[in-house]
Amino acid sequence: MAVRAVVWGENVHEQTDRIVRELYPEGMHGTIAAALSQDKAIEATTATLQEPEHGLTKARLAETDVLVWWGHAAHDKVDDAIVERIQQRVWEGMGLIVLHSGHYSKIFRRLMGTPCSLKWREAGERERIWVINPGHRIAQGLGEFIEIETTEMYGEPFAVPEPMETVFVTWYEGGEVFRSGLTWQRGAGRIFYFSPGHETYPIYHQAEVHQVLRNAVHWAHNPAKQWTSVTVGRNIPTDKAREKLIEKGPKLASHAPKG
Amino acid sequence: MAVRAVVWGENVHEQTDRIVRELYPEGMHGTIAAALSQDKAIEATTATLQEPEHGLTKARLAETDVLVWWGHAAHDKVDDAIVERIQQRVWEGMGLIVLHSGHYSKIFRRLMGTPCSLKWREAGERERIWVINPGHRIAQGLGEFIEIETTEMYGEPFAVPEPMETVFVTWYEGGEVFRSGLTWQRGAGRIFYFSPGHETYPIYHQAEVHQVLRNAVHWAHNPAKQWTSVTVGRNIPTDKAREKLIEKGPKLASHAPKG
Amino acid sequence: MAVRAVVWGENVHEQTDRIVRELYPEGMHGTIAAALSQDKAIEATTATLQEPEHGLTKARLAETDVLVWWGHAAHDKVDDAIVERIQQRVWEGMGLIVLHSGHYSKIFRRLMGTPCSLKWREAGERERIWVINPGHRIAQGLGEFIEIETTEMYGEPFAVPEPMETVFVTWYEGGEVFRSGLTWQRGAGRIFYFSPGHETYPIYHQAEVHQVLRNAVHWAHNPAKQWTSVTVGRNIPTDKAREKLIEKGPKLASHAPKG
Amino acid sequence: MAVRAVVWGENVHEQTDRIVRELYPEGMHGTIAAALSQDKAIEATTATLQEPEHGLTKARLAETDVLVWWGHAAHDKVDDAIVERIQQRVWEGMGLIVLHSGHYSKIFRRLMGTPCSLKWREAGERERIWVINPGHRIAQGLGEFIEIETTEMYGEPFAVPEPMETVFVTWYEGGEVFRSGLTWQRGAGRIFYFSPGHETYPIYHQAEVHQVLRNAVHWAHNPAKQWTSVTVGRNIPTDKAREKLIEKGPKLASHAPKG
Repeated sequence: MAVRAVVWGENVHEQTDRIVRELYPEGMHGTIAAALSQDKAIEATTATLQEPEHGLTKARLAETDVLVWWGHAAHDKVDDAIVERIQQRVWEGMGLIVLHSGHYSKIFRRLMGTPCSLKWREAGERERIWVINPGHRIAQGLGEFIEIETTEMYGEPFAVPEPMETVFVTWYEGGEVFRSGLTWQRGAGRIFYFSPGHETYPIYHQAEVHQVLRNAVHWAHNPAKQWTSVTVGRNIPTDKAREKLIEKGPKLASHAPKG
Repeated sequence: MAVRAVVWGENVHEQTDRIVRELYPEGMHGTIAAALSQDKAIEATTATLQEPEHGLTKARLAETDVLVWWGHAAHDKVDDAIVERIQQRVWEGMGLIVLHSGHYSKIFRRLMGTPCSLKWREAGERERIWVINPGHRIAQGLGEFIEIETTEMYGEPFAVPEPMETVFVTWYEGGEVFRSGLTWQRGAGRIFYFSPGHETYPIYHQAEVHQVLRNAVHWAHNPAKQWTSVTVGRNIPTDKAREKLIEKGPKLASHAPKG
Repeated sequence: MAVRAVVWGENVHEQTDRIVRELYPEGMHGTIAAALSQDKAIEATTATLQEPEHGLTKARLAETDVLVWWGHAAHDKVDDAIVERIQQRVWEGMGLIVLHSGHYSKIFRRLMGTPCSLKWREAGERERIWVINPGHRIAQGLGEFIEIETTEMYGEPFAVPEPMETVFVTWYEGGEVFRSGLTWQRGAGRIFYFSPGHETYPIYHQAEVHQVLRNAVHWAHNPAKQWTSVTVGRNIPTDKAREKLIEKGPKLASHAPKG
Repeated sequence: MAVRAVVWGENVHEQTDRIVRELYPEGMHGTIAAALSQDKAIEATTATLQEPEHGLTKARLAETDVLVWWGHAAHDKVDDAIVERIQQRVWEGMGLIVLHSGHYSKIFRRLMGTPCSLKWREAGERERIWVINPGHRIAQGLGEFIEIETTEMYGEPFAVPEPMETVFVTWYEGGEVFRSGLTWQRGAGRIFYFSPGHETYPIYHQAEVHQVLRNAVHWAHNPAKQWTSVTVGRNIPTDKAREKLIEKGPKLASHAPKG
């Protein structure tokens, strides 16, 4: 069965800016979804900020294996209730791929527990993304590096927790570096952050970027039974303990329910 | 200079429950602060939920090296603005020690990015805390294990991110296990979670527990210059790049400020 | 294509001890291979210490996706050249599953870089293996725990590097705990250590243990192009640099080749 | 009490090459030890390959808190028995700082369990070492980066295990990147790798490099009671179990001592 990916696009620059619209007439989300769909083992659809519930109803998220997220100008417009819903699904096992300016999205900052701040410069400089972990699923089919001719610089320190794995590190023409591909786990969900993707450059038209995104969808997909009880604290009564127990010790007069 | 520790106590059970008040006439926070103060290199004070701003004003947090947190019945009563203030200080470099039922506190869940759920049983059973990492600062002066005769069981799975280090793992009489001492870093701040500490048992009167808490304060203390800019995204103009750059590529018509 | 697993057995106790032979008439390796083969997506064969090159020729290892290792009485009899060959294959991408007393095998200690020491007791006590990471591939199809009625105790501290993931933690009847399922990566190779498996008990006849082993084979399998150059240091001449470079600075009179 | 650091130098190029001798008339080890000694809290001495037991007798290592290692041309000349002795001390709690071409030293490769290979180019290009973890002890007193005008390029992929922390990442004039400051733990010992330091350049005369080395000595110092039993497997007899146990199950006819 194909991996069910939803590409979420903020879809603001595409509506308001001629440059972006000309580059991405289908929206960045549309271009990315088309790139994913080149792989028959991925079934990619799109959702946008402007749709009801941002296109991410409970029912749809329940049937999503991997969510791809691009946002920039309207992070604050994303409804907190939807963000909590996404976070719950990540904990349960849905994969999440956060792109470029999504580093400041509500969902990414909540999952990281850190500010996710960084430096930036919009000078259209060259970026060379080095493969640090050549055996990693996300690096399959790539050479030693990817070059992007015109990119926005994102510079360290990138205020995220130590990653599980460093997949890519970027060299910039202007002299900075960036950990451009990082992975984490939160609950049963796998998270990948990939930094290239400024809206005024044709980065999501580049074949190697497509390859990374398809790889990432497969990597982030956790086919395990979803961990739906991940938020549930659970009391184990004394008579259900696996070893014979005799209760002892004092208790609160009125023991309030917990969890 | 001594490490400045603030022991924060929710201070609810101590007011409402006779059992807890008799066990901890100074409050659990008072007992813990006294235990820390046995070490001349620690300067421990207390703060509670009931004080203005929960005793954690901006000025006080600015002069706090390590915050110790015990809460249970009133997590929801903790003001979100104060939680954000604490989180900011952790990112900047303040250490945080989260005790027992504090696993469900707002501050811990925000820093972890996960539900922090677990199983529990209040049967007064025995707990044996094994030292997993004998060279760790937090395990100094302990033997191979600590035994607590009367404890609340906290069972796996504990829904937290993979820790940086597993310091302790607990064996319970009733048949469960728990990763009872775990560390993480968020920004420049070090975080330690330690599971024993149910309010109706004399756990915070036990000498080995005092030793763990004093060790943890020293471990969590980051004497580095505080990373006060940790939340600040910063633009690096092209003419400030370390390497000579010539701008190229299109830009948004109206480039909105970012970060 | 099925995952090609080789189950390596030391095959000493099976030859010298009546108890072990009666429990495992096909050898422990034979029993394990049969358990793996119940999954049509795994193609399992065996190899033993007594075969030429311990059954692990260069050609065979080149066609092995995952190696499963059980040894105990004869770690020192394993030829160093074969150990190096295995290590090279792990670095290239071959998975490695180390069982029980294999914690002291040459290959495991070399890959860990630590003593891999632990405590033990042979009292036939009960072990309860708790699932710590319910969304992990290796825990699929299991309940909250596995109980093994008669086991050898392996106790902490287990002198291994911090794992990438803690999948299982064991509770023992006699009062100890053990991180019984741990993962690491070395080069492109994934490593899983699983502690149950004493030779005089029927542990490898237990269905849940079979499930863990099959899961682990799938998890350890890295289908990526093998990283065959992993040991190769490589000079990048100045005229092959991606950015234009002009050499400067002094050099050794006689620059010795390096790497 | 001051941290006792031993700076180990291979001391070959200094003897055989005029360029190196002129740059480092006291040997690179001598220059580094002098830089460490500028900090009154560090007591630095030197040892070299040519001394009996390479200057690293059992007695001396027993009194060493942190060992700093520089080698290049003669890794194979280092006696395996001495390497094992160092490894044992690292496991017990001695810190280890591995410099530059020491990535291929026996001691580093043994502790990592990986090939530690990389790319390189000797073109005297510029290196900019970015601070990734500004709150880290090793980065104290530095600005956002260190620039080294004339360096040897070391390029990714660097075949080491995922680090505990990424402290520095380097940008190179020729277009590569490198994780130039990484940390790990092995047993109770802390390990830091720092990549700059080619023998024909004045890198160890640079003030910021001195600062990094002094910081690293303090970070690597583990004042805990040394874990001298780290290699000792230990049997816990049934009657010494913390919980009452009744032995059951079969045993080997002749139970061989283990561990």
